[in-house]
Amino acid sequence: MIKPRTPPGVLELLPREQIAFQRMLDTIRRTFERFGFLPVETPVMELSEVLLTKSGGETERQVYFVQSTGALEKGGDGLPELALRFDLTVPLARYVAEHEHDLVFPFRRYQMQRVYRGEKQQEGRYREFYQCDIDVIGKDVLSTRYDAEIPAVIAAVFEALAIGEFTIHFNHRKLLRGFFEGLDIGEDARQVAVLREIDKLDKRGEDAVRATLTGPDFGLEATVADRLLAFSRVRATGHDAAQAALDALGAGTPLFEQGRAELREVLRELRALGVADQRFALNLSIARGLDYYTGIVYETTLNAHPSIGSICSGGRYENLASHYSKSNLPGVGISIGLTRLFYQLRKVGLVGTAESSVDVMVSLMDDAGLEAALALSQKLRAAGLNVETQLEARKFKKQLEYANRAGIRFVVIRGEDEAARGVVAVKDMRRGEQFEVAEAELARTLLVEREQMRALPAMGT
Amino acid sequence: MIKPRTPPGVLELLPREQIAFQRMLDTIRRTFERFGFLPVETPVMELSEVLLTKSGGETERQVYFVQSTGALEKGGDGLPELALRFDLTVPLARYVAEHEHDLVFPFRRYQMQRVYRGEKQQEGRYREFYQCDIDVIGKDVLSTRYDAEIPAVIAAVFEALAIGEFTIHFNHRKLLRGFFEGLDIGEDARQVAVLREIDKLDKRGEDAVRATLTGPDFGLEATVADRLLAFSRVRATGHDAAQAALDALGAGTPLFEQGRAELREVLRELRALGVADQRFALNLSIARGLDYYTGIVYETTLNAHPSIGSICSGGRYENLASHYSKSNLPGVGISIGLTRLFYQLRKVGLVGTAESSVDVMVSLMDDAGLEAALALSQKLRAAGLNVETQLEARKFKKQLEYANRAGIRFVVIRGEDEAARGVVAVKDMRRGEQFEVAEAELARTLLVEREQMRALPAMGT
Repeated sequence: MIKPRTPPGVLELLPREQIAFQRMLDTIRRTFERFGFLPVETPVMELSEVLLTKSGGETERQVYFVQSTGALEKGGDGLPELALRFDLTVPLARYVAEHEHDLVFPFRRYQMQRVYRGEKQQEGRYREFYQCDIDVIGKDVLSTRYDAEIPAVIAAVFEALAIGEFTIHFNHRKLLRGFFEGLDIGEDARQVAVLREIDKLDKRGEDAVRATLTGPDFGLEATVADRLLAFSRVRATGHDAAQAALDALGAGTPLFEQGRAELREVLRELRALGVADQRFALNLSIARGLDYYTGIVYETTLNAHPSIGSICSGGRYENLASHYSKSNLPGVGISIGLTRLFYQLRKVGLVGTAESSVDVMVSLMDDAGLEAALALSQKLRAAGLNVETQLEARKFKKQLEYANRAGIRFVVIRGEDEAARGVVAVKDMRRGEQFEVAEAELARTLLVEREQMRALPAMGT
Repeated sequence: MIKPRTPPGVLELLPREQIAFQRMLDTIRRTFERFGFLPVETPVMELSEVLLTKSGGETERQVYFVQSTGALEKGGDGLPELALRFDLTVPLARYVAEHEHDLVFPFRRYQMQRVYRGEKQQEGRYREFYQCDIDVIGKDVLSTRYDAEIPAVIAAVFEALAIGEFTIHFNHRKLLRGFFEGLDIGEDARQVAVLREIDKLDKRGEDAVRATLTGPDFGLEATVADRLLAFSRVRATGHDAAQAALDALGAGTPLFEQGRAELREVLRELRALGVADQRFALNLSIARGLDYYTGIVYETTLNAHPSIGSICSGGRYENLASHYSKSNLPGVGISIGLTRLFYQLRKVGLVGTAESSVDVMVSLMDDAGLEAALALSQKLRAAGLNVETQLEARKFKKQLEYANRAGIRFVVIRGEDEAARGVVAVKDMRRGEQFEVAEAELARTLLVEREQMRALPAMGT
């Protein structure tokens, strides 16, 4: 006998949690499609040679390699031939480069699949987790107008998920780098190091970061450190405040001005897209990704739960697939780490076990009623209801207990007495009420009730 | 520069194929839920020790093992600690045993995920493929009434997929074994060997199989072989014909009679469930699974494409999780291998590239129209349409070419002239027509058109 258990670092859900998770996936997908993004799925295994173009990094240490005892050979370089994807960006780069001539650009794609990382074991860290990504990829050029579309999608996603107020923060790497140039911190590596420090503001606090910046490692003058910190303190929520904050920054280098102009345009477009002012904020403390992003960068936080950190991050990059293609493929994208988000939301009580996906349980009073119960169930299904039939005439109390534990709202009862009168009894498990309805009216009545239920706040308890 | 390519043995789709595939997944899921099945997802990686309870078989030779260069250790038995699931049945067994006390029985679950097998490279064989499984698991007992529910679900799935006429064939292992007993082929291993021969009827033909059965390996008398072959020739479509065929079999052993009685009940319940007579057939040539199944067994074929073979198979088993639990967990289930099915359907032209999931493209005539285009797009989205906005005022011809290649049906045009009159022009790319509609009526008009389109046959060309 072997003890049944999952490997560490995975999140496996019970059915009613899985229903809640699936509803989040469905909502995200529906919203991505609402904005014209197209579905892509890639294999979980990629060729190691293709996946690990940047070798020796943190990433590679976390990669899972795959080997078959039978059919497959090892690759020539000594590594196993196959590896599991660790994000959806590298597979997207490979996909776009491989299928470049079959795709239409600008290419808006979404991808919602699991990725794998051999993380150290730690609460809330997963070795297998869902990412829900959108990216827009251009051929040669991609207008900065797409930079405004991404947060509009994200605003629509989190409004639809109904997990509380949220803010999409953004900054711009050109503004940031231009600002550095103005402070005579011109060298790339130095900027990156300083940015990395500034990125720690939330964790370490301003005093500790100032001490590091003016200390031996960086040797910045106190006035320079203060200007950096003042800059990174800028927060401005909504169109008008953000435009005013950009005004207040004073003149800068050409790169700085370019970043500012692009941010102004994004703000105008967000307004045209009708994104509510409280949903987005200019936040000059955000750096992100350091080497990777070259334009706008985004982070998203839940207002009531800042400790969760960013739940959706991304930005603009210069060239998606330089390892695979000579084409220049600029892009902008964002990613939701849904497994971690679900875990965090469950922890603070914002999601949990949902009501069942089953709308109705048709109970069975006695064996003689089986065929009628089957036929009634099919009639309700044809009307669009999700129906479970009790196929065994267990004690009625047992059947009700089952419905209750399973989270099924309606139990249909059709005993001899009801059958003779052409009605059925319906027990509403949620309200604890029972009512009778003409059999011919049953499907319509339940559909109306279900619609009303769906109009209530989306997530379960 | 590295050549971008997928590993051999995976099916990666272009967006418009992926849309067609996704629609099939959605249809299957919706139908599974219509019958009260609950979603389960399990991690793609399982502990090798847990996954490989039966060692040394064909299965283990095809297993992909997983190893991390960093965080993870090897297991104690020398094998890598982790392996990729090769089906959804072993993970279900592990899941049910692990969560037994949190589940409500009978437990109807569906699972639609990818599985991994290191198959030899061969056309139409995949190393990564989707399985779409349903199973009902009982605690201690599970009424044979569930044996009729499974084909009712499958009939609803394939009707909804609209890929042509199909037949769900079934047989019963008790009928089969009882029949063997009647022929004095009582020994288990001998029955299995004979069944394996009979299972080859379609491939080898009756004469070759008869020759083998009467030859040195089996040494059956010619009359016995003839009775076996006559038995396996029995086919009867629909309730009445199948009942009559069961009548015609003559008396048998108690086991035989039990199988016959169970089949009779399944037939009656299929009728009560309203499953159309042409959808199901008693077919006594079907054996399947040999060691695993103990009751009813199912196979499903497309009437117009017998060469595709079974597209959905399963049956009843005695105990799901004997390796993991002392509980007796009988079950009945069925599986659709969707990746292979999609490949086959595409080959015979029954599925292919779908129209885009984007309903409408809002074109952009000039930069001055950008904000109006964004606002109009959002209004259409709020009405429930999937909308892509052209964010760059490229030549109109280019925008139309884009819509055409992307498979988007409607292009909305709102030039100065239209704006002044409060109308928009709509180009219907499918019909090659253009019409004008009041801007306030646009969303409603397009929604009506989309509904009409959806009422047409589901799959693309």
